[in-house]
Amino acid sequence: MTEPDALVVFTPSGKRGRFRIGTPLLAAARTLGVDIDSVCGGRALCTRCQVLIQEGEFAKHGVRSAADHLSAMTTAEQRLANRQVLAAGRRLSCQARVQGDVVVDVPETSQVHRQVVRKAAEARDIELYPVITLHFVEVAEPDMHDPSGDLKRLQDALAREWQLLGVGCDLKVLQGLQVALRAGDWKVTVAVHSRSQIVAVWPGFREKVYGMAVDVGSTTIAAHLCDLTNGEVVASAGLMNPQIRFGEDLMSRVSYSMMNPGGAAQMTDAVRTALSDLATDVARSAGVDHNAILEMTLVGNPIMHHLVLGLDPVELGGAPFALAVDSSVTVTAADIGLTLNPSARVYVLPCIAGHVGADTAGVVLAERPDLATVMTLVVDVGTNAEIVLGNRDRLVACSSPTGPAFEGAQISCGQRAAPGAIERVRIDSQTLEPRFKVIGSDLWSDEPGFAEAVAKTGVTGVCGSGIIEVMAELYLTGIINQDGVVDGALAARSPRIIANGRTHAYVLHEGAQRLAITQNDVRAIQLAKSALHAGILLLMERLGIDKVERIRLAGAFGSHIDVKYAMVLGLIPDCDLANVASAGNAAGTGARIALLDSRSRDLIEKIVRKVEKIETAIEPRFQAHFVESMAFPHKTAPYPNLRSVVDLPEPKVVAQTDGRERRTRRPPARA
Amino acid sequence: MTEPDALVVFTPSGKRGRFRIGTPLLAAARTLGVDIDSVCGGRALCTRCQVLIQEGEFAKHGVRSAADHLSAMTTAEQRLANRQVLAAGRRLSCQARVQGDVVVDVPETSQVHRQVVRKAAEARDIELYPVITLHFVEVAEPDMHDPSGDLKRLQDALAREWQLLGVGCDLKVLQGLQVALRAGDWKVTVAVHSRSQIVAVWPGFREKVYGMAVDVGSTTIAAHLCDLTNGEVVASAGLMNPQIRFGEDLMSRVSYSMMNPGGAAQMTDAVRTALSDLATDVARSAGVDHNAILEMTLVGNPIMHHLVLGLDPVELGGAPFALAVDSSVTVTAADIGLTLNPSARVYVLPCIAGHVGADTAGVVLAERPDLATVMTLVVDVGTNAEIVLGNRDRLVACSSPTGPAFEGAQISCGQRAAPGAIERVRIDSQTLEPRFKVIGSDLWSDEPGFAEAVAKTGVTGVCGSGIIEVMAELYLTGIINQDGVVDGALAARSPRIIANGRTHAYVLHEGAQRLAITQNDVRAIQLAKSALHAGILLLMERLGIDKVERIRLAGAFGSHIDVKYAMVLGLIPDCDLANVASAGNAAGTGARIALLDSRSRDLIEKIVRKVEKIETAIEPRFQAHFVESMAFPHKTAPYPNLRSVVDLPEPKVVAQTDGRERRTRRPPARA
Repeated sequence: MTEPDALVVFTPSGKRGRFRIGTPLLAAARTLGVDIDSVCGGRALCTRCQVLIQEGEFAKHGVRSAADHLSAMTTAEQRLANRQVLAAGRRLSCQARVQGDVVVDVPETSQVHRQVVRKAAEARDIELYPVITLHFVEVAEPDMHDPSGDLKRLQDALAREWQLLGVGCDLKVLQGLQVALRAGDWKVTVAVHSRSQIVAVWPGFREKVYGMAVDVGSTTIAAHLCDLTNGEVVASAGLMNPQIRFGEDLMSRVSYSMMNPGGAAQMTDAVRTALSDLATDVARSAGVDHNAILEMTLVGNPIMHHLVLGLDPVELGGAPFALAVDSSVTVTAADIGLTLNPSARVYVLPCIAGHVGADTAGVVLAERPDLATVMTLVVDVGTNAEIVLGNRDRLVACSSPTGPAFEGAQISCGQRAAPGAIERVRIDSQTLEPRFKVIGSDLWSDEPGFAEAVAKTGVTGVCGSGIIEVMAELYLTGIINQDGVVDGALAARSPRIIANGRTHAYVLHEGAQRLAITQNDVRAIQLAKSALHAGILLLMERLGIDKVERIRLAGAFGSHIDVKYAMVLGLIPDCDLANVASAGNAAGTGARIALLDSRSRDLIEKIVRKVEKIETAIEPRFQAHFVESMAFPHKTAPYPNLRSVVDLPEPKVVAQTDGRERRTRRPPARA
Repeated sequence: MTEPDALVVFTPSGKRGRFRIGTPLLAAARTLGVDIDSVCGGRALCTRCQVLIQEGEFAKHGVRSAADHLSAMTTAEQRLANRQVLAAGRRLSCQARVQGDVVVDVPETSQVHRQVVRKAAEARDIELYPVITLHFVEVAEPDMHDPSGDLKRLQDALAREWQLLGVGCDLKVLQGLQVALRAGDWKVTVAVHSRSQIVAVWPGFREKVYGMAVDVGSTTIAAHLCDLTNGEVVASAGLMNPQIRFGEDLMSRVSYSMMNPGGAAQMTDAVRTALSDLATDVARSAGVDHNAILEMTLVGNPIMHHLVLGLDPVELGGAPFALAVDSSVTVTAADIGLTLNPSARVYVLPCIAGHVGADTAGVVLAERPDLATVMTLVVDVGTNAEIVLGNRDRLVACSSPTGPAFEGAQISCGQRAAPGAIERVRIDSQTLEPRFKVIGSDLWSDEPGFAEAVAKTGVTGVCGSGIIEVMAELYLTGIINQDGVVDGALAARSPRIIANGRTHAYVLHEGAQRLAITQNDVRAIQLAKSALHAGILLLMERLGIDKVERIRLAGAFGSHIDVKYAMVLGLIPDCDLANVASAGNAAGTGARIALLDSRSRDLIEKIVRKVEKIETAIEPRFQAHFVESMAFPHKTAPYPNLRSVVDLPEPKVVAQTDGRERRTRRPPARA
């Protein structure tokens, strides 16, 4: 005689099976491998395991499903329904028991591995595969007749209730275990890392745990605090990297470390303090105890990566640019002195090469060029430009020493992006008069009310995106030629052009201070962009290609510039503009993916090891590419896609000092 | 056509195989699984791989072996031979290559898994299975054409030269890796823990690494520094447990922790400081850098165990005596703030129950009652007595609250074992006059020169072993009866007996101070010994036995007392005296075994979990046994073995106040 059973079908997965009458739906789901979340382990506490019961005939499933094919609502469910926690038609799968055939819909919010809502600039959805899981357990009380340690009884409970076997425990957690168990009257919530290590134990029921994804840039540090149970960003914050006091750019910080005994340790302390401050900030603004932050992921360039980990960056300051470690590193917050939960794990993404760091690994994880069918170029512009090129067959990467010109440094009127900075520029090709927008106002400078709008901040300088636009407009209007020379003869046409021997300039704004683009400023941008372009050409050469099909610009700079102007100046090679876009803060997104999707960690490690690394410093072709890339947009590349939308000036000879020939149109030589 | 080969036979293992001409002997040994030590990986640096070449015809092996069946001595070997490092007839197996059939003897000193010479009191040899192994490697220099991290290239070298795959690395080691690799010109010695984790990297070749075995007693802490490459003890030291200032015995320390917020942390600091001091002491006396101490093992009673690990011992102060953790714990020296190498691992042996700690686990590991064919009793007497009883079929254990009387506390003339303390006592059965020996002199008190010998220290008190002997002699001479009552009537026979109402006494020594055994002293010893005996009886009852076949007394007390006197007083049950012996500091030996033989760690964990634990506090029979055990040697047990060698007094009724009957001879009731 067989026991009475019933068919249970879960949607949307379609998984199905026959179960004994009386089986809880959650148990049925577990048996079938249907993903339903639960923290309380079936005690009607966490309400995460909600399901919707489909009513009606389902020919496809061979089921007539009805709400009364389940046991009646329990008192706990009734209470939750009265409090509107449990909407109509919903049941807790841990409470509802099978009484007859039933079709059970598992809403996405009840799944552990749910999709995290993506942001506009992000390429792909993030799937939640949490590193930290929460487990509510009831632990056996100590028994003198069968003595065993508190930890042993906790481990037994995790094995019994959650099938977690052989789980270890941090010493710091063990030191607080006795109190937690007794304060919770032997009911505790356990946070387990990678299903293998107990990293926190709290008395009673607890349903939230948090993680922090951090992008340590040379200039700014940005952090997102995420709810690890649903993947949502609950707070974000950023601050200046306090290492700036040791040197504006990376190399000056490495020099500081070389010249000052203990200098690296000072910078390590500074960045760790900043990370702790950020953690405090985001925890406070989300109303979360910083002890609830149990995981952190971190990206950064190799020097930031080394300094955070307390590794001396000196070796990165000169050839052969050897990393201390290139694989990912996992340490505890206590190991590196961060004021998160001391048992929090800090996962630092792998570095690719001495100049291509964990930040680029983050970009790769966010953009996944290794999945691309078309030849994809990903560029992350900072003080250096990290460049990754390729598709699903092959990836190559390098770093180019662009210097800080794109960030406004080395430019006479340059400044960081801040209220008062010019960010958009147009120049009239006839009058050569400019109009512009400044950060903090939506008005163009020739629109009514502009003066009032900027009265508070003034017009203080030109930020990165403004510099790109003004340079491109100067070129498009013929004020500078393809070789970057300011045409002094135009001084006759417009007072904006100042002809002053060899240091011609264009006056963008006359205010409390004059903002002018000088010949030197143009040269600085040329040096930066030709370094970037030369790096790209090296990679294209390595892959034997002469055009790219898709371009992603990552980082703050990449997010704010108009990609068309970047192409006019030749920061990037020719490409259909429809396929060129910002990738937002892709490095930071990569950190967030590594935080939320535990599978991504093995993945990025594998991708990174397969990337072919090119060191520009030892590539003999780099110098040649560099020279050829000085011209706008490039000395020889034809830029057909760009020309189809922008009327690029034809090159003309102006006051050239080196007597070089006019450019000849031929593609760059390939290896 | 087959390549020419030759037969190589290794002795004493007898392992043999045919190898291509030119194969190094070390490679042949590795192929056959013959245990030959090497740190330098075949570079003729460490000289550990020495073998002896057997010459002659070996019919048994089918070999004519000769020295010239090997390649000629290399320059490196010649140099070592000149320096007498390589004795005549010896070769380095990494240098000598097979040229013809050869019989190769591997001396024990060339084996990794050699036997460690045992001490007199130790039951078994220790076999060396080191947790830490040293590996000399040459690491590839960084290459810009194929960039990879220093750690990656080190891991590659370990895999290539030592078949160590997937080895991790401590953050602290990583932080020093760059400097070590460059200081050693890319040749370094790596210390690897459990063949899985890099715990130290030193520039160049290094052949020694050390470990420390520690026994944390309530009163004293003892440490042995061992050379982990050969198992030898290179230095030992001990000091008083500084926690004594928080309370003389364990329970007063637990009380201190209960009464004083932060009291447990204070005691933790104190014991950790003491452990660091001991490490410094032993390192200094062995002439070793404390950074070379890379492993530590630790035993101690549950309260010491908890305090060292920073676990609050309060729960151990009352029922249900719950341990925070009963399994073994491995932490780093940095985790618990010890000044060894910060990456040193500290392995703390498992606890058995709330009153039976890691010290008892150490005793079990040293004595291995789980291997015994005869019923074996192991007793470790301290402030509590830990008792383990059983054989290879079954083990039971408990702890009995003996109190500190055996250590001289609670005894009017008691003192710690120190120069001037009486340690041996005989009483003339006719004259009732005593003679004794004091620590610091080999003379009996009635021998010529005794007064001069002890002039410096004086006779200051009676230590544990002296107390046992004087009590036993008092009983054997009839000065006290079986119930422990001093026979005041004997005052008529000897001035040594002082009859003073209910507080009779026996004067052992009249000097600067009078040393007398009072009625209260006898009562204190009776209480202590009956607690011990009652615990033993509980265990015997649990196993359903009425006699034990073998007894081992562990600990300082067990090492110094005369086992016959211990039996006369009934500290232990009757047993053939030939099978009763001291086990020395078995807990400390257990720590040393865990240090040297890595296999022992899983082993003790398994044994400990199988031990049946008995909590005396909740055993209803304990009180009954306790009362019956007050008499010398026991109220009812017949003690036939003891009686065959000692003339035990027949019980007689003296001034009894409770009117109890004379003892009836029957074995104690069994469950």
